[in-house]
Amino acid sequence: MCEANAYLRKDGKEEMLMEMVDKVTPQEDGLVLEDIFGRRKVIKARITELALVEHRIVLEQQD
Amino acid sequence: MCEANAYLRKDGKEEMLMEMVDKVTPQEDGLVLEDIFGRRKVIKARITELALVEHRIVLEQQD
Repeated sequence: MCEANAYLRKDGKEEMLMEMVDKVTPQEDGLVLEDIFGRRKVIKARITELALVEHRIVLEQQD
Repeated sequence: MCEANAYLRKDGKEEMLMEMVDKVTPQEDGLVLEDIFGRRKVIKARITELALVEHRIVLEQQD
């Protein structure tokens, strides 16, 4: 499976936000992250980096 | 390997933009796509959908 982990970058540090993310879709109220089990998180953020071979999605919070 | 294919969505259709994409990073002049061989493309676009299990990155052109 080719899911990735989503990290939130804050003050130069990265914290794990969600593991095994399959889908990411921007919507009005923020990014919708959905993992391979269909669990969802919505966060006001934007994608700042994808590195798929490393299974990394990096997000940055938006106001 | 967990690379994905990048598609450009235009008028409801999707055309293949780049295969075997590893990294995507937003920069001043647009999105930088890099495939697993290190080849790069820069495009004025934004990410509208990620579906990693399906190996899909969908972009939409920006003006």
